[in-house]
This record gives sequence, C-alpha cells and structure tokens, in this order.
Amino acid sequence: MSRQLKVFGWGYEGDGLDAAEEQDLLRTFGERFGISEFDRRAAPDLGAVEVAAPRLAPPASLDAVCSTDHQDRLSHCYGQSYPDYVQMLEGDFTNAPDIVAWATSEADVTAVLDWAADAHAAVIPYGGGTSVVGGVEARVGDGFKGAVSLDLTGMDKVLEVDTTSLAARLQGGIRGPAMETALREHGLTMRHFPQSFEFATLGGMIATRSGGHYATLYTHIDDFVESVRCVTPAGPVESRRLPGSGAGPSPDRLFIGSEGALGIITEAWMRLRRRPTFRASAAVTFASFEEAAAAVRAISQAGLYPANVRLLDAMEARLNGFGDGKRSIVVLGFESADHPIEPAMARGLELCADHGGDYDAEAARDPGSHMAGAAGAWRTAFIKMPHFRAPLVSVAAIHDTFETAITWDRLADFHAGIMDATHKAIETVTGRPGYVSCRFTHVYPDGPAPYFTFVGQGRHGALLEQWNELKARVSDAVIDLGGTITHHHAVGRDHMPWYERQRPDLFGDALGAAKATLDPAGVLNPGVLLAPR
Amino acid sequence: MSRQLKVFGWGYEGDGLDAAEEQDLLRTFGERFGISEFDRRAAPDLGAVEVAAPRLAPPASLDAVCSTDHQDRLSHCYGQSYPDYVQMLEGDFTNAPDIVAWATSEADVTAVLDWAADAHAAVIPYGGGTSVVGGVEARVGDGFKGAVSLDLTGMDKVLEVDTTSLAARLQGGIRGPAMETALREHGLTMRHFPQSFEFATLGGMIATRSGGHYATLYTHIDDFVESVRCVTPAGPVESRRLPGSGAGPSPDRLFIGSEGALGIITEAWMRLRRRPTFRASAAVTFASFEEAAAAVRAISQAGLYPANVRLLDAMEARLNGFGDGKRSIVVLGFESADHPIEPAMARGLELCADHGGDYDAEAARDPGSHMAGAAGAWRTAFIKMPHFRAPLVSVAAIHDTFETAITWDRLADFHAGIMDATHKAIETVTGRPGYVSCRFTHVYPDGPAPYFTFVGQGRHGALLEQWNELKARVSDAVIDLGGTITHHHAVGRDHMPWYERQRPDLFGDALGAAKATLDPAGVLNPGVLLAPR
Repeated sequence: MSRQLKVFGWGYEGDGLDAAEEQDLLRTFGERFGISEFDRRAAPDLGAVEVAAPRLAPPASLDAVCSTDHQDRLSHCYGQSYPDYVQMLEGDFTNAPDIVAWATSEADVTAVLDWAADAHAAVIPYGGGTSVVGGVEARVGDGFKGAVSLDLTGMDKVLEVDTTSLAARLQGGIRGPAMETALREHGLTMRHFPQSFEFATLGGMIATRSGGHYATLYTHIDDFVESVRCVTPAGPVESRRLPGSGAGPSPDRLFIGSEGALGIITEAWMRLRRRPTFRASAAVTFASFEEAAAAVRAISQAGLYPANVRLLDAMEARLNGFGDGKRSIVVLGFESADHPIEPAMARGLELCADHGGDYDAEAARDPGSHMAGAAGAWRTAFIKMPHFRAPLVSVAAIHDTFETAITWDRLADFHAGIMDATHKAIETVTGRPGYVSCRFTHVYPDGPAPYFTFVGQGRHGALLEQWNELKARVSDAVIDLGGTITHHHAVGRDHMPWYERQRPDLFGDALGAAKATLDPAGVLNPGVLLAPR
Repeated sequence: MSRQLKVFGWGYEGDGLDAAEEQDLLRTFGERFGISEFDRRAAPDLGAVEVAAPRLAPPASLDAVCSTDHQDRLSHCYGQSYPDYVQMLEGDFTNAPDIVAWATSEADVTAVLDWAADAHAAVIPYGGGTSVVGGVEARVGDGFKGAVSLDLTGMDKVLEVDTTSLAARLQGGIRGPAMETALREHGLTMRHFPQSFEFATLGGMIATRSGGHYATLYTHIDDFVESVRCVTPAGPVESRRLPGSGAGPSPDRLFIGSEGALGIITEAWMRLRRRPTFRASAAVTFASFEEAAAAVRAISQAGLYPANVRLLDAMEARLNGFGDGKRSIVVLGFESADHPIEPAMARGLELCADHGGDYDAEAARDPGSHMAGAAGAWRTAFIKMPHFRAPLVSVAAIHDTFETAITWDRLADFHAGIMDATHKAIETVTGRPGYVSCRFTHVYPDGPAPYFTFVGQGRHGALLEQWNELKARVSDAVIDLGGTITHHHAVGRDHMPWYERQRPDLFGDALGAAKATLDPAGVLNPGVLLAPR
C-alpha cells in the first residue's frame, strides 16, 4: 500500500511500458500517420502545477479524515479518460477538489455527507479513479461552495464469505485484486474482470454497471449483486440478501448504475463461483466482419453460454498486433469448474464453420489454449492497453474508444453508420484520415455490444476541442442509429447530453424525484445522471 | 373470444374438473381430515348478488369504452386468491369497481387516466385477473370518489416479430396462449409459462415479475424484457430497445414489478428463443429433503442450467398423486433448440447420485421422457391445480400456497422454521393439524425459491378470519427468517405489511417520490406497493 499511484498515467509509479515498448508503440503510431518527428510534450510537473487554495475548511471533527495536501488534490482531480489526460498534460487542474476525504468507515462517510450537505459542498465518490467518462471530476458548476473527493479505498475489507451459497460480503472500497486474492483462499472467484480491474473498487463497479470477463450470461456486475448497502445523505439503505425476489421493483437496481449520485455503496453481498478447472479457447478467422458477426449471433442464440466470444474486426486484430489485417477473428472460450467443455466448444466451432470460419482444430483441443495464440495475445494486449494513453496523448495522438449495444436486426446499418461517422469525424476534425476498428465485448441472444477504437493525429493546444467535436459526432451517430450511449463505461459527465436523449423523459423525472428524496441537498456527484439543481 | 370466463372458478364456463375428478379431489381431502359429510356451500348466485349503484359516471366521450354492466363489475371485482374465493362464496362483492373500462388502444388508456385523475377515481389495471395477492381488487379506502377497473385484454396484438434478434413487440393485454400461437408461426417461443399462463396477460406478467417455465437462468419475466412502453398519468414512457445497457439505473427495472401503481404497460419488446427440439427429463428420488436439496444446490452451482430442476418434498409429491410419501423427488429437465443435452443430463444425474439420488437411467434416456413419469404427472397436476380452489373452498378447506426465496446457507433453518410455523398456525387457527408441503420452483446458484402448500379444515363463516390469521403467521415467519415475501406471486394488497418490513425504508420513500412524479393524483392501483396518499 506504500506504492504511489501515478497521476498522469495508469497504475503505480514504475509500472507500465518499458522504453522499448513505448518506442514501439510510438513508432507504430508514427508509421500509420507518416510522422517521423513527434511534437512530444513532457508529462506535467506536478510540483509546479498551481491549484487555487481550498475554498472550504472541514470541521475539526473531520480533521483525521480530510486532507488538503497538494498531491492528494491533484491525484483526485481526474479519472482515466482521454480528455482527462489532455487536461493533465496541459497542467490544467482547475477542478481539483478542495478537499480529499479518506473514509475508513461508514461513520466517516456519514460524517462527510452530513457536513457537506450543511456546507453545500459537492461530494464526488472516488474509488479506483478509473472512470473514462468524467465520473470523478469535480466539474460541478458554480452552485456549490466547494468540492470534496470522498476516497473509499480505505474501506477494503472482506467481511464474510459464505462458501455454501457461494457469496461474500465485501466493503465497497476493495479493489479487484484484493478481492480475488481473499476469495482464492476459499476456492472462489467473482471472475468479473473489467479492464480497470487492477484498481477499480467493487463499489465503483456496481455504481457504474461495469462489464467484465464473461461475454455471455453474466456480463454486467449487475448479475453478481445479491444485495447492496448504501449510505445516502438521508440515511442508510440496505437490501435483503436474496437469491431472487419478485417483491416490487428491485431496490438493488436503483443503486446499480447510480454513479455516486444517489448514495455511497459501502457494502455488497456478491455472487461468486468456484474457480474454473476446465478451460479451452480457440481463435477462428473469417473473410468478413459480416460472416464473423453471423457466427457470433448463431453461438449467442444457441444457448452454449461461452465465457468468451469476442469478435475482433480485421483492423482491431491488426492494431493489437495479430492477424493479417484482412480477416476478422472470433476468440471463443469456454470454462467450467464442474464439467468438461468439449461438447460446447465442438458445437461452437461447428457454428463458426457453418458461417465460413477457419480454425486450427488441434490447437482448440490443447488444454493450454486459453493462454495461447490469438486468445493469449489478446489477453496480453488488453492488460497493456491502459498504459498506452499517456505516451500517445503526449505526441498529440487522439486515441479513444466508445462502446454501445444494438439488436442484431440493426447491426449491419448501425455498424456501417458508426464506422462512417467516425471516419468522417476524424477527417473533419484533424484534417486527415484516421483508423477505426470494432470488436464485440459482450454478446446477447438479441444483439452484440460493439466497442469502437479510433485514432487520429491531433494537434497540441487543440486536442481538447478536437476530442470534444469528435466525441459529439460519434455520440450523435450512436444515439441517432438506435444504440445506447454506453454498454459498460457509464454515463459520467461526458455522456450526459446523449444519455438525456436516450433516457425516457419521465424516467428522468422519476429518477430526479428519487434523488431529491435520498440526497435532498443535491450534493452527491452533481451533474452525473441528473443536471445539478 | 365469445366464451365466458367464470367469475367463481378458474377458466371458461364449462372448463375445469369433471364430476369424477371433483369427487376424487374432495374424497381425498375428506379422507385426510376424516370428514365423511361435507358442509358444502353452493357457488354464489351472481344474478342475485347485490352491488351498490356506481358512484361515478364516465364522460360521454368514454361511453364506448366504459361499462357499468352487473356481470362486468362482478367479474372484475376479484382475482384468484383464496380470500377472493371465500368472499365470492359469501356473496360479498362490496369492492366491485364502479366502472369497467375496456381499453382497445393507448388513446383509450390515456383518456381513462385523464378522466380518473380529474374525477379522483382509483384506476385498477386488469389483465388476466389471475392475481393471487389482491392485486386487482378495488380495496382502495375511502379517499377516492370511486373505482375503475381498466381491462386491457382488448390490447392483444402482436405488432412486430424480429426473427433475426429473436424478439417481438407485443401489446400488454395479450394473453399467454395468443402470444405463443402467434410466435409459433415464426418457430419462436417466449417459453415463459407461469401457472396463470392460460389467462395472464403479458403486461400483467411484467407488472408482477411473474415466474415461468425455466427453473434456472431465465426465471422471472424480467429477463425477457428488452424494452417497455408504459402509459402513466403524466404521459408515455418508452425505453430504448437494447440487448444490454449500462446507462444509469435501468428504466425497465422501475416498471418491471410496478404492479400497476406507476403506469399501464401497453407494449413491450420481449426476448424469445427458438422452439426446443432436444429434450430430456428424469425423476430422481431421495431418502430425505436435505439430500435432495444438496443435489439441487450442486446442480445449480455447476453451471449446467437445466430448464427444470424442481424439488418436491415427500408430502408435495404425495399430495399431487405420485411418489410413496416417503421420498423427495427432483424432476430434472434439459432442453435445447441447438444441441443434444445428454452430456448435461448425464452430469446432472451424476450429481444427484453423489447426493444419494436414485433414478431409472433407461427412462432418462427416453426422448419422450419430459412427458412421462413424474415429470409428466407433475405437468398434468400443475395445469389442473387452479381448478381445485372453487370446490375446495366450497367445503371450507383452507388450501393455499406461499412462496419465497432464501440463500442456501440459511435454507435448513428457514425450511424447518417455516414448516413449523405453518403447522402450528393451522393447528392454532383451525383447531386441528393440517398438511404442509414444500417444493422448489426456481433455483439459483446462491439459493432456491421454496414454494409451500398448506391445507387445513376451516369453518364456513370464519374462513376469511382464519385465513387472515394463518397468512399473517406464515408471512411473519418468512420475513423474520430472512426470506422475501414473494419470489413471483407479487405484492398486491395482501402482502403489503410484510413487503413494507422487507423493503428498505428509504427505497420506499424513493419509490413514493417516483410515483408522485408519474401519477401525481395517486390514482393508479392505490394501496399496492405504496400506501394511498
């Protein structure tokens, strides 16, 4: 715990790409855009960054909890989004919180909320700080006397493990690895691995409806929540621990996805499973994205429930360093703690073959297959990806992702429309063509969750403006073409205009009424999900 | 459509038990309680029933929609609960709605809601009328000028079928059989068969979080809802059609389980599947309930996802006419439209054997097995059950069911506690021992949904009072021991005291605030989910 997390960059100081990997990343980027000499900006000198003096002083009773330390304020200013990095690179920490409160108990949370409501200070719940949608930045407008970042990572205990029901009661501030380490002692796992897993906290995952490991069935963290306990400004709310219920609208579902705007998730009972012992993975290539999508649809509608059925289009595969740039790849994986998965894999591969897929039948039978070939290469690339952001932004690359979901009947038009809108947006905004790729992160019987990555060559000094225009154009396309503004990245502040277009108006009003009940002073994460009052 | 639905009894006039079946039912009941001569009351003479004159007159613009016909008012007075039957038998139709409105369009629904809000008339949404929890009875207190039963069965169209995404857009008033008949033409099915399937409407199923066919994975109708459209007194609300989303708390989940208190579900896009072609079922017997439960737990935690894994305790099996009254039975069934289910069945049976289960391996391999033996006998009994209520109540039998869910770690104590409380309640209330049995209707990796059936010998004239006391005692036990007051029967008016104990207080307040937004005059199904304002 003594390791220092980076402010500008992913992970701990000292972690990340080594010099050769970074050079490789930038060379690849440079080659794509014909750049031989980069306009490279140095990482911000955090010691030299100026932030305004705190506008608020916490009461003496909160002295032990609250900090106005320079580094604490900087490290809680941003999440991990592209525009966050741009602003950090530019030394802009205008929205740094006035105070960072380090909660180690529910009493701390309650005390901070009580004081903030009285002082009319905005409270920004802060878990792993891995938001890519502006969810943790104190961009709260002028209606508040100040802003407090409420850091919950001190609430990181495993409170109970129920090895009979396969469930555990955990504090909301526990990070992914600590949770999995504790559960491993009992032979259990949640097996929910969002890309932010290393730092994200359980409460943050629940508050943002994170998407994890499983490509089918148990996709969102929603499915793992057995019950939740929240502290709201109006008091605590705790749902009953139940495997299923039909008693009115689900209380859990109000807090799942509430993004810190309705309450602080301090505890949850989470559903677990035994660690898998049977595993297999195979990579199948297709001549076209359409054929690959048809195969994935067939698999998703067959009731086979693969743990993984990730489609990578040809560009996505190439950008991640495998494939020939011509064929789409489907990585298909099955796992079980109970029984052999060969029959399911065989049928999954048969469905791929029915749709023109090619695969190495021998490799698919290899028990180490889930770590080998394209499956393994993807896994490695996936873990490395968050480290790319800092070096890429420092050379003015505009490199970002967005993700959505759509029903199968609309996929072809949707995919073509989004690809086209994104290509055009890059060219319009940057003055030159860029690269756009697509993969499916999760797949449902009624449709996939497509995930788009785009990269263009931006210009230092204009990056934020360029990104804003790009983001608006692609988000308009997502909403116009019938998608959701987010399948698992959450709404935050960045997606608000499109979330408000997507959300039924009266549901927004009902949600606002719920918030007014739970957070009468309107201090919880203002501007997220609901416009500040 | 010209067939007349019974008021006192299940189904259409002319349907139900034949004379021999009824005699058999009553003889069995009589033998259990040592009764040779029944105190049998005749079914109510509906023509002779007196109801007060309507307190309200609809505006002329609603003349074509509204009825004050005697039979219409009587047929919309009650659902299908035990106390409903007692009151009908006693000729008590005090709460008959003043008006029955027959909506055939959203415009009708809107017009009725507008008028009712102005007139301060309670509006009771009425689909199949199959509520067993007082969900459709106009027991709304004195705060209203009258009550309108809003019958939605005229909104029964299949609007669109998407054979690519396997989904359909259906009107809320369509009944189960009409829905399945229309879908069959496309080779599709929802395969959601609550016991009320024959009459229940889609909107009613969604509003009450009905439990269906599948014992694992897709248990509640919740899982089948892709999007909903509701008409609320404040206006329409329609969610986007999406296979998955992470954009804030789910709008759908506010209306799923809203029991007519927040809006009228006029349309929904529902997820479907192809009709199964591979099926197998087996009955496994166990020396004890505990061993059977352990086997079911193992299966539910193995990731095998059987369509059926119904545990019947020895008494439940015997009461339904099969088994020797000594052994518990697990009916295990698999089905698929895509692939053979033998490997899953073999592993499921192996897990049963590991826990002391006995089965006929030959019979399990028979392709007709899902219709044979205990599985088939159960299916037949299940369909017949709703017809038992009228004859049983007419001989003063107190015969009812309640259902719940509990995590596996608490099952043993919970089951023992509920069995004990129910036995004691019957003996206390009726003065003599009764019968109590238990089955599992649905099973989750973290716990089962136990369903209890009880029967005692009551007394005409005191049945309602006796049932109320029994219901209160068993419901207290369910809540005290950590269960949910309902897994799939819904809350209605009958479960309100226990729902309010179970529901987090602040969630109740937030739900009330949402209702005040959507239904400002508070006219929608008052007393259900929320106390009338």
